[in-house]
Amino acid sequence: MSAFGMHGPGQLTGPVVIIGTGLLGASIGLGLRGRNVEVFLSDPSPTNQAVAVDIGAGLPLAELTAKGYDDGAVRLVVVASPPDVTAVVVAEALRRYPHAVVTDIASVKSGILASVTEQASAEELSRYIGTHPMAGREKSGPVAARGELFTSMPWVLCAGPETSPEAREMARTLALDLAATVYEFTPEEHDEAVALVSHLPQVMSSLLASRLQEVGEHSLSLAGNGLRDTTRIAASDPKLWVQILGANAGPMVEILHGVREDLNRLINTLEAPEAPGARLDLAQLMSEGNAGQARIPGKHGGQARSYSWLTVLVDDRPGQIAQLLTEIGEIGVNLEDMRLDHSSGQNVGMVEISVLPSKHDALVEELSKRGWKVLQ
Amino acid sequence: MSAFGMHGPGQLTGPVVIIGTGLLGASIGLGLRGRNVEVFLSDPSPTNQAVAVDIGAGLPLAELTAKGYDDGAVRLVVVASPPDVTAVVVAEALRRYPHAVVTDIASVKSGILASVTEQASAEELSRYIGTHPMAGREKSGPVAARGELFTSMPWVLCAGPETSPEAREMARTLALDLAATVYEFTPEEHDEAVALVSHLPQVMSSLLASRLQEVGEHSLSLAGNGLRDTTRIAASDPKLWVQILGANAGPMVEILHGVREDLNRLINTLEAPEAPGARLDLAQLMSEGNAGQARIPGKHGGQARSYSWLTVLVDDRPGQIAQLLTEIGEIGVNLEDMRLDHSSGQNVGMVEISVLPSKHDALVEELSKRGWKVLQ
Repeated sequence: MSAFGMHGPGQLTGPVVIIGTGLLGASIGLGLRGRNVEVFLSDPSPTNQAVAVDIGAGLPLAELTAKGYDDGAVRLVVVASPPDVTAVVVAEALRRYPHAVVTDIASVKSGILASVTEQASAEELSRYIGTHPMAGREKSGPVAARGELFTSMPWVLCAGPETSPEAREMARTLALDLAATVYEFTPEEHDEAVALVSHLPQVMSSLLASRLQEVGEHSLSLAGNGLRDTTRIAASDPKLWVQILGANAGPMVEILHGVREDLNRLINTLEAPEAPGARLDLAQLMSEGNAGQARIPGKHGGQARSYSWLTVLVDDRPGQIAQLLTEIGEIGVNLEDMRLDHSSGQNVGMVEISVLPSKHDALVEELSKRGWKVLQ
Repeated sequence: MSAFGMHGPGQLTGPVVIIGTGLLGASIGLGLRGRNVEVFLSDPSPTNQAVAVDIGAGLPLAELTAKGYDDGAVRLVVVASPPDVTAVVVAEALRRYPHAVVTDIASVKSGILASVTEQASAEELSRYIGTHPMAGREKSGPVAARGELFTSMPWVLCAGPETSPEAREMARTLALDLAATVYEFTPEEHDEAVALVSHLPQVMSSLLASRLQEVGEHSLSLAGNGLRDTTRIAASDPKLWVQILGANAGPMVEILHGVREDLNRLINTLEAPEAPGARLDLAQLMSEGNAGQARIPGKHGGQARSYSWLTVLVDDRPGQIAQLLTEIGEIGVNLEDMRLDHSSGQNVGMVEISVLPSKHDALVEELSKRGWKVLQ
């Protein structure tokens, strides 16, 4: 075990400098301050920086010397700048803080490593490690920051070939201190993985939602949960996604070629739906979707698993739903997932509940006995 | 007001014959029996029919005469057969029951009307109206049937050019008796609308999920709610969807051509992500997704509306969530939507709650005061 390893998780020691105090940078600051780590904040926007300081995410970087430190004392620098300036900021930080581990948290990794490698010395590169905390909310900016933002979310460490074991251990400690779940990927593996599990869903959702622009309101009145679920992330911020897609263009193009092949196959089939083999083609396409969907891991990162759903009708008041959940608790059945159903023109709510298949029938029976209207 | 109209909604009178006692047919039977309408059931599968009779969805069709009726006494026939045999069954029913209105409930309408028109006389056509109740659960078969299945779900009436006002009124009464929300579309309008709001989401979800077939488990461990939401319906039954997509091939092909144009545009842009205008292209594509998504109507068929989300950390026990909802009720804030967040490797649950934007900040403050960990 290295001297570093002996710290064990949960014992990051400062001072830590955070560059970029948007939602993620300020949340990291808050989380570390909650563990009494000394944090200093820097942001090109004085307003952003002042807000981050005000909410308690750390002190202004200018106070580093007032606290008796010089740049050589900084242990860790977290670069939380926008993706398109991250590499430059990382290289500057490696030069300015000669004994610090420098990490960035941008959501695409290979390009940044390549760019940092061009700008940094071998010694500097050994102190750099790219990471990707997969947390983020609809809101942005330091006002929305919360120290708990990373709790049980994935935090991917992407060490480069030159990254030292100490730098890697420091990044791991940071993630564990903030209660994240740590994964290790190479930068290339990471970029291919997020292309598939994060960037492709975004693109498909946007392409789908885009088709709704021209249609009549009458048609949209038939929208149900299928449409709502598949288009929810199409509401995401274009500014951020332009940077992400641009930075991960290589892996995305490869995946999208596969999508285009399947789409062409589908269009050809539907252009001659009575041709021999057309039904089989359609069935195959749908089955491939089944097979891919079934591979998505279940709750808590466990094995992919199917749950049984049931639907309960409730009056559209929060008290009703609370009452329902209280009774499910009393019955002793564990809730695996739930959602509200809105395909509705009336003030009746539907609560969809998933439970382990073995619990389904007993729960339906017990809820029905207690007077709930259960659809299945 | 016609003599028929004087019945008003909620006063369907039998006898009603239901042909096809799967989930939807048996649910219609149960709902009508709950209103004391006389229902007779017929299904090519003796088992399906027996189960439907056993759960109380109606009597076997063979008992029609035993109850003192002949075929001429039947007021309404509901054809709930699989889509690919629906037209033939409708035409047979129009001949066999000379005074009945005949309606079908298949999820694609133009092709069935065309086929019925070829087979039926003008008098028979006046008694036919296609409809589409947009309800259905993950389960199938009469065992899963519930009389409340249609409550506040859309039920689309698609009168043909020959449909009589009486037939239309009868279909409307059926839908209202079962507490559905009635819409009227021409068959062509209906097929175009469902191609967009129902069939396209299914196809995009299947195409997306299909890409997950080959990827390593390591990559899938990073899956979050974005991927889960966009691929949920990819788990749908291929057998049913082959029939639906095949029957609505025309409108689907047209929409998919548009998707392919956008996809080609995106691939071209990502193949040269540093080219002049590439960023603008990406931003435009994302913005078009924003614009389409924003048009989807809100809860209860109301105007599209944006809600504010907040996330509350809870222990992963049903009692916790019930307690949270109870307290939100006490605080007096109305829940617009909620979901459980599973991007997690630990037994901490996240409850995402949406409320009116004007209520957001007060609720965050009040919940925090009560000791809940609120992310934003």
